[in-house]
Amino acid sequence: MGDIITIGRRFGSGGREVGKRLADELGFAYYDKQLLESVAEQTGLAVDYIEQYSEAGYTRNYPYAFGRAFVSYQQSPAEKIQLAQIDVIKQLADKGPCVIVGRCSDYFLSDSNPFNVFINASNMECRLKRCYDKVPADKGKSENQMKKEILSVDKTRAKYYEFSTGQKWGDMQNYHLCVDTSLFGIKNTVDVIKYAFLHKDD
Amino acid sequence: MGDIITIGRRFGSGGREVGKRLADELGFAYYDKQLLESVAEQTGLAVDYIEQYSEAGYTRNYPYAFGRAFVSYQQSPAEKIQLAQIDVIKQLADKGPCVIVGRCSDYFLSDSNPFNVFINASNMECRLKRCYDKVPADKGKSENQMKKEILSVDKTRAKYYEFSTGQKWGDMQNYHLCVDTSLFGIKNTVDVIKYAFLHKDD
Repeated sequence: MGDIITIGRRFGSGGREVGKRLADELGFAYYDKQLLESVAEQTGLAVDYIEQYSEAGYTRNYPYAFGRAFVSYQQSPAEKIQLAQIDVIKQLADKGPCVIVGRCSDYFLSDSNPFNVFINASNMECRLKRCYDKVPADKGKSENQMKKEILSVDKTRAKYYEFSTGQKWGDMQNYHLCVDTSLFGIKNTVDVIKYAFLHKDD
Repeated sequence: MGDIITIGRRFGSGGREVGKRLADELGFAYYDKQLLESVAEQTGLAVDYIEQYSEAGYTRNYPYAFGRAFVSYQQSPAEKIQLAQIDVIKQLADKGPCVIVGRCSDYFLSDSNPFNVFINASNMECRLKRCYDKVPADKGKSENQMKKEILSVDKTRAKYYEFSTGQKWGDMQNYHLCVDTSLFGIKNTVDVIKYAFLHKDD
């Protein structure tokens, strides 16, 4: 197993912050949404456009992972973006030790045997609090509205993951470690993952 | 959160061994199948009979957790066993710090805020090896046969858990920490859980 850590996460679990802090503590590179900038360079498309397509614009009827050879002659924007994204993820992972959040990186990097982590937050109150704290403008929204939005983002991530990988998003079978930030909080979650990463059998 | 650790586990993951070692390291009591002896005392039924009923003999059509009041006048053996089992689990947990493996203890002890762990083994080869090593008599069985038996035990556990709790067995939403022994091995899994238990927010 190399020094690649992938992080899947529920919306409002603090997964991105966990990933960033973990990378800082380990001295690893950290990749998240910013890898879309490399995808933009590679495809010549705008970042916003890519972001919209890469998690919500999947329109093909078979998993990306299977189809590279026979779709190259007639790619949709979503296909073009996804294939560029897979290339970028692999290029970044080749550069050296890193933490990559989201983007089905556990699946697309499986040949490199990454350490795959999922950040959960079993308690909806914790997720709501986190969302309200992160985006002050959301404070005008009711808890019911926010809850709907949180679950909607999860649903989109699940669909994207399942469509891209053929696997079930958030199924512990796909992760070596799943940690609940509702119990551990952000700092201790980082500590637990770091401890586990340094104590895995190689 | 008290000092109660519950452990759910896939068959062949080494969950019982993890639980026993963890209890030893923490100086906690350890309860597993032997709690059935207390159930036997309480119900006057034989341990073998209880074991058969408690994970495979559930025949009611609503979850145990909901029905205590209105089934007391006409209990089936499975009901009688299950209700005694819930009592025994609660009595044992009241005695002091402990690790309890299986028996839906995460759910039945939820009022005591246990630390809930699930032991997974994502790699079937690891599970097969563990089963062959633990029961030499099984060495005559083909891998296909063993795999079927492993998955069948998981299926029974899942049904029992889902029937008893109304929750999905093996859903990370029900556990604070899920660890894959295929990556960590037994010793490191124990260390990771112990570290996490000692670093949770209370």
